[in-house]
Amino acid sequence: MHGLMMEGSLSITSIMQHAVANFPRQEIVSVTGDNPLHRYTYADAFARVGKLANALARFDLAPSDRIATLAWNDYRHLEIYYATACAGYVCHTINPRLFAEQITFIINHANDQVIFVDPMFVPLLEAMRGQLGGVKAFVVLTDKAGMAENSLPNAISYEALIDGQPEQYSWPDVDERDACALCYTSGTTGDPKGVLFSHRASVLHAMSSVMMDVMGLDSRAVVLAIVPMFHVNAWGMPYSVPMTGGKLVLPGPKMADGETLQQLIEAEGVTYSGGVPTVWLALADYLEKSGKRVPSLTRACSGGAALPQSLAERFDRLGVRLEHGWGMTEMSPIGTYNIPTSEMENLSAVEQGELRLKQGRAVYGVQMRICDDTGLELPRDGEAFGHLQVRGLFICSGYLGLDESDAHGADGWFDTGDVATIDAFGLMQITDRTKDVIKSGGEWISSIQLENAAIGHPAVAEAAVIGVPHPKWTERPLLIVVPQPGESPTKE
Amino acid sequence: MHGLMMEGSLSITSIMQHAVANFPRQEIVSVTGDNPLHRYTYADAFARVGKLANALARFDLAPSDRIATLAWNDYRHLEIYYATACAGYVCHTINPRLFAEQITFIINHANDQVIFVDPMFVPLLEAMRGQLGGVKAFVVLTDKAGMAENSLPNAISYEALIDGQPEQYSWPDVDERDACALCYTSGTTGDPKGVLFSHRASVLHAMSSVMMDVMGLDSRAVVLAIVPMFHVNAWGMPYSVPMTGGKLVLPGPKMADGETLQQLIEAEGVTYSGGVPTVWLALADYLEKSGKRVPSLTRACSGGAALPQSLAERFDRLGVRLEHGWGMTEMSPIGTYNIPTSEMENLSAVEQGELRLKQGRAVYGVQMRICDDTGLELPRDGEAFGHLQVRGLFICSGYLGLDESDAHGADGWFDTGDVATIDAFGLMQITDRTKDVIKSGGEWISSIQLENAAIGHPAVAEAAVIGVPHPKWTERPLLIVVPQPGESPTKE
Repeated sequence: MHGLMMEGSLSITSIMQHAVANFPRQEIVSVTGDNPLHRYTYADAFARVGKLANALARFDLAPSDRIATLAWNDYRHLEIYYATACAGYVCHTINPRLFAEQITFIINHANDQVIFVDPMFVPLLEAMRGQLGGVKAFVVLTDKAGMAENSLPNAISYEALIDGQPEQYSWPDVDERDACALCYTSGTTGDPKGVLFSHRASVLHAMSSVMMDVMGLDSRAVVLAIVPMFHVNAWGMPYSVPMTGGKLVLPGPKMADGETLQQLIEAEGVTYSGGVPTVWLALADYLEKSGKRVPSLTRACSGGAALPQSLAERFDRLGVRLEHGWGMTEMSPIGTYNIPTSEMENLSAVEQGELRLKQGRAVYGVQMRICDDTGLELPRDGEAFGHLQVRGLFICSGYLGLDESDAHGADGWFDTGDVATIDAFGLMQITDRTKDVIKSGGEWISSIQLENAAIGHPAVAEAAVIGVPHPKWTERPLLIVVPQPGESPTKE
Repeated sequence: MHGLMMEGSLSITSIMQHAVANFPRQEIVSVTGDNPLHRYTYADAFARVGKLANALARFDLAPSDRIATLAWNDYRHLEIYYATACAGYVCHTINPRLFAEQITFIINHANDQVIFVDPMFVPLLEAMRGQLGGVKAFVVLTDKAGMAENSLPNAISYEALIDGQPEQYSWPDVDERDACALCYTSGTTGDPKGVLFSHRASVLHAMSSVMMDVMGLDSRAVVLAIVPMFHVNAWGMPYSVPMTGGKLVLPGPKMADGETLQQLIEAEGVTYSGGVPTVWLALADYLEKSGKRVPSLTRACSGGAALPQSLAERFDRLGVRLEHGWGMTEMSPIGTYNIPTSEMENLSAVEQGELRLKQGRAVYGVQMRICDDTGLELPRDGEAFGHLQVRGLFICSGYLGLDESDAHGADGWFDTGDVATIDAFGLMQITDRTKDVIKSGGEWISSIQLENAAIGHPAVAEAAVIGVPHPKWTERPLLIVVPQPGESPTKE
């Protein structure tokens, strides 16, 4: 027997409507190429989203058509996210750092109809002329004055496109299982694979990610989305921040520039942020060198790669608690987040320091398990390690245009390709990529643990461990290091 | 085109599994009749939930059969919530304070198959003998030793029922739209009406309610659920606290006893709680009289009735921020919650004090509007007032066994029966019940505003305003007050 509850839709549209109804004057601040610091409100933003949705009509699109972006994090990119998804299309964010062949492959594989492109990436697309047959038009993310001469067919500036359009749009009632966004994930081998996010999964991911044991967002938060909007939707921040009514700060192309980040954080009073360790390294370097600080920023998420202990400790000294999160494009992306529970507060500082570097506890909506090669589930004791598998509310069931079995096994679990432990606190720790485990004398050796140990040495800047064939042990680990400038670490 | 995301189910089962996997040692503390302070862990609780689910097999139940409770907030009641819902039945919580005829009506209307009953309510059911034809068995919430002589047919103690049952249960994959819980709402006229909650609505309500601008729950929270589990599932706390991994404190029959509440809060380190103003009045009285305090409790929710300004200010002096929330059984129940946004922090203390007494902003998942008698939407200016209507992800579409049109109009909005304003901050304020508005000389007079003004007088304990016929004005308000002990307020 069904309950007697309304059939509301978990749609991106509902996030937009919630933000406009409850937080119309909250700000969105962007660094963009054509306006160093652009500032407006949610009410302004979603009025322009309506204009853009109306403007899209000129491209003669069908429901679920893909509309691509090659762009940094700014307000126009945010508008495209909402106008496409809420009007029933799919926002396909392309990583401009991929090889040109990969970008060409992705655009054609996704059958992108229109491409929105930052001025600085126009030459990149110009070089692909003749290879992008299905693309009807190109929209350059600038105003009419900023529109430079280019060879793209049917090119128009963003501001010219939406100029004169009405702000009202009759948003369709989307099926919550319909696709709203598309992001290709590129492994080291093979073609990139498209992860097709649904409205439902994206909304549930946002609801889960704003919880206090994850990002902990609210209407008083000022969130700097450093992680690019082409990296799994900036970890969902373009959805989660409007859902909770916070102020959104977008750094444009300046996301790896320590000085810009410090200035933005100080000027806007940023309270939370998310980015990869590389970005945090740049910020730590700048803060230590300049003596400047970021007092409003008490915590931030480091994800996308392991959190180096040395980096966490540098930020401890700078007054920022770096929290480690883990996920994958295939997981929308957040799978785990590492915030201590009350029982962990009774542990020693050393133990707590070790635990905080683990990838974290599963967020609500994600189930995790580790299995041996035969599929047998292994104990959650922090010692046993095996194949990490996940399932849940916002995890992919397949890749665009590929057979579903490419994504998960017959039992409904997605194999992450990682080898991990799970401890009694529920904390998961990745010990290796399945492909990177070194099988030495019948035992698994973790290349990541060796790399982390090496990176902890003061004379080492970067380190990598690879497996090399060995007559006796089958494989042995080989450590390769990049020394710190002026240092010459010895073999010992 | 659908997204390519797993079809995970928004089920109560998923909450249980999340709590066991991530917070197995977190505590649940209860005051019960047979054990003044019972304490165990989530792992213990959900092991017993498995035993209970197995034990239910003896009653030969069909999917979605209703299983009733007449019980206070304690650990056994919590186990029944989960065992029934996760095994595919419906947990029907009955308010033992209703009139006996209403309880008889409800039990028969819901077609309850089994009733779980606290020992103190056994006489209440014994008095209904012969009128509860469909009930197969009665389970008394005590152990074998605590089982007193009674005349209920097929009566067994709870502990005898689950004794020897296996802890493992093969939880079915429930359809997220299936019913999980049932609660009757009783108006002042007519028979009580059954609100039938779905798994999906209950889970989404929990996800929305734990957000920082609502209850703000996490794994470090210690939550005292004062509001009864038969009042709209204790505002969802039996779901939201395990979802976020907090410690759950259940006061049993002692929820209106200031001394017990103070002791529980102090002993367990309670950080958050929810209850009606009556309960907070009892606690404030006790704290002021005894000189004792509740330092761990920095904030708490007052709902179920308007928040009197005097009560809010008393708790300010006691170091507890009382936050006002509003909802209805038909809304699962939370519709709005009142936490200031950053822009409100710039207002004067007086303005902030006025705003905090409003019912609050819509939580994510709820849309609100006010309409005039013709259905025209009115402006959100804090001045215009009209019929308050809601729709969203966890709002009822109908009542059990009644026509759907009893719950909402053809346009999909549920009419709350309240008259309200909505201001530019999105804050909704109820000015009256539609039925209680006094129509004087063609103008609406709010009985609630008059009542609140009267209650603010130091000599007044309680106040009510009713409309009385008047030859000239059609209706005029009549104020009736209960004086504070020893006080004799004058007409002026």
